[in-house]
Amino acid sequence: MEKGALLYEGKAKRVYATNDEQIVWIEYKDSATAFNGEKKAEINGKGRLNNKITSLIFEKLKEKGIESHFIKSLSETEQLVKKVTIIPLETVVRNTAAGSFAARLGIEEGKPLSKPIVEFYYKDDALGDPILTDAHIEELQIASEAEREEIKAKALQVNKALLELFSDLGIRLIDFKLEFGKDASGNIVLADEVSPDTCRLWDAKTNAKLDKDVFRRDLGSLTEVYEIILTKLGGGQNV
Amino acid sequence: MEKGALLYEGKAKRVYATNDEQIVWIEYKDSATAFNGEKKAEINGKGRLNNKITSLIFEKLKEKGIESHFIKSLSETEQLVKKVTIIPLETVVRNTAAGSFAARLGIEEGKPLSKPIVEFYYKDDALGDPILTDAHIEELQIASEAEREEIKAKALQVNKALLELFSDLGIRLIDFKLEFGKDASGNIVLADEVSPDTCRLWDAKTNAKLDKDVFRRDLGSLTEVYEIILTKLGGGQNV
Ligand SMILES: Nc1ncnc2c1ncn2[C@@H]1O[C@H](COP(=O)(O)OP(=O)(O)O)[C@@H](O)[C@H]1O
Ligand SMILES: Nc1ncnc2c1ncn2[C@@H]1O[C@H](COP(=O)(O)OP(=O)(O)O)[C@@H](O)[C@H]1O
Ligand SMILES: [Mg+2]
Ligand SMILES: [Mg+2]
Repeated sequence: MEKGALLYEGKAKRVYATNDEQIVWIEYKDSATAFNGEKKAEINGKGRLNNKITSLIFEKLKEKGIESHFIKSLSETEQLVKKVTIIPLETVVRNTAAGSFAARLGIEEGKPLSKPIVEFYYKDDALGDPILTDAHIEELQIASEAEREEIKAKALQVNKALLELFSDLGIRLIDFKLEFGKDASGNIVLADEVSPDTCRLWDAKTNAKLDKDVFRRDLGSLTEVYEIILTKLGGGQNV
Repeated sequence: MEKGALLYEGKAKRVYATNDEQIVWIEYKDSATAFNGEKKAEINGKGRLNNKITSLIFEKLKEKGIESHFIKSLSETEQLVKKVTIIPLETVVRNTAAGSFAARLGIEEGKPLSKPIVEFYYKDDALGDPILTDAHIEELQIASEAEREEIKAKALQVNKALLELFSDLGIRLIDFKLEFGKDASGNIVLADEVSPDTCRLWDAKTNAKLDKDVFRRDLGSLTEVYEIILTKLGGGQNV
């Protein structure tokens, strides 16, 4: 596989073409950003951690019967994935109230929800990723009702699988964000990443935060907690 | 009917008990507020205009078969209404993109929507009235699915009736906010007010704003444009 032109540089990753039309080469960067890019830092080792964690999680999801764009890991910071056209929705699944959700609705952070909630946000940095209702998604022609229902169902399947996976590791899955895309045949495919950048993960015993909130809220070393997640997933340096 | 104790003072109205348990006495104030109370003014005559406009609109809705809490007008600024327990949702119906909706979603103000959109906002000044999805309403136990569906259906009926009513007067109904409550028997009843405070109304020919945006955006005299609406509704001073 040959690495081609840079197609897109995002806040956390670079996307390169390859000699295969249907495959892109993803490079995880050491950049950390929060609050729609307002808070920024370069954090040595973050790219390696997220590349490894995402790869392991997509592999484990596959073992549980959930397909994704992930093809294979290439290096400490690079992976090959199926190329998709990203649907501009951030699909968020929440099991426990936290972050903006808790603040917005006046619910105490840490309160378990009576059932998982799926939310859609418009993936548009200029607009600050506003939350969308089904009617908004229809008006903006981002996804049809059938597509929305498929994405919701898939997101809830991923939630079930991740809840199982993390609970086995002594971790509470609070919430997470997914992105879906369409492949060349129009199938909806789970894409982007699943990492401590995109999940809230709390230690099941202590409720210590093991995710990007450590960076957002200045709670300590990001790489230390990401390394804990990687080790628990079986990908630590000494394993 | 006797006026009893002040039960509640809101931003635009005072609610008094009466000697009938199931009836409250509403007094429209001269206060104008916008942006969740950040912008405020006392505007002489506003209470009279909104009391008269709301009364006329509820009467016209009744003629079109749509019931509300409205019982009768008492004076220039007062009316009797059925007492309800307000459901803490602001139900917004939109026909044309405007205001926060247009800004939030990056849609040009004035663009007609492909079909009317119903939105729910949490009526909670401390939280700044955040927008809610159905899943949020369920989690917050504000309304059951059946109640949400009933409210949506009623809101769309009101929209149809108001579109007709205003279009006959040469006015474009851009969007509006409704509040619903439950009466003593648990029935869902259209309550609160329908006025240029709670509707966006544009002159059909010139698109001139004939509503509270005149105050929000400092576009001229609020009472002048509210008087235009009152006159068109057949309630002007010289009629
Ligand atoms: N399989 C894929 N094919 C094409 N683009 C993808 C794929 N997976 C993720 N992307 C996109 O790669 C881009 C770079 O990722 P990232 O740096 O996280 O971007 P952002 O700043 O938008 O969060 C994003 O636009 C993301 O949606
Ligand atoms: N029929 C009714 N019975 C009881 N309360 C009502 C009724 N109609 C409206 N209200 C409530 O009267 C209060 C006063 O109105 P308003 O000044 O507009 O309040 P707000 O500041 O909440 O907008 C509001 O809480 C409104 O929901
Ligand atoms: Mg991203
Ligand atoms: Mg009000």
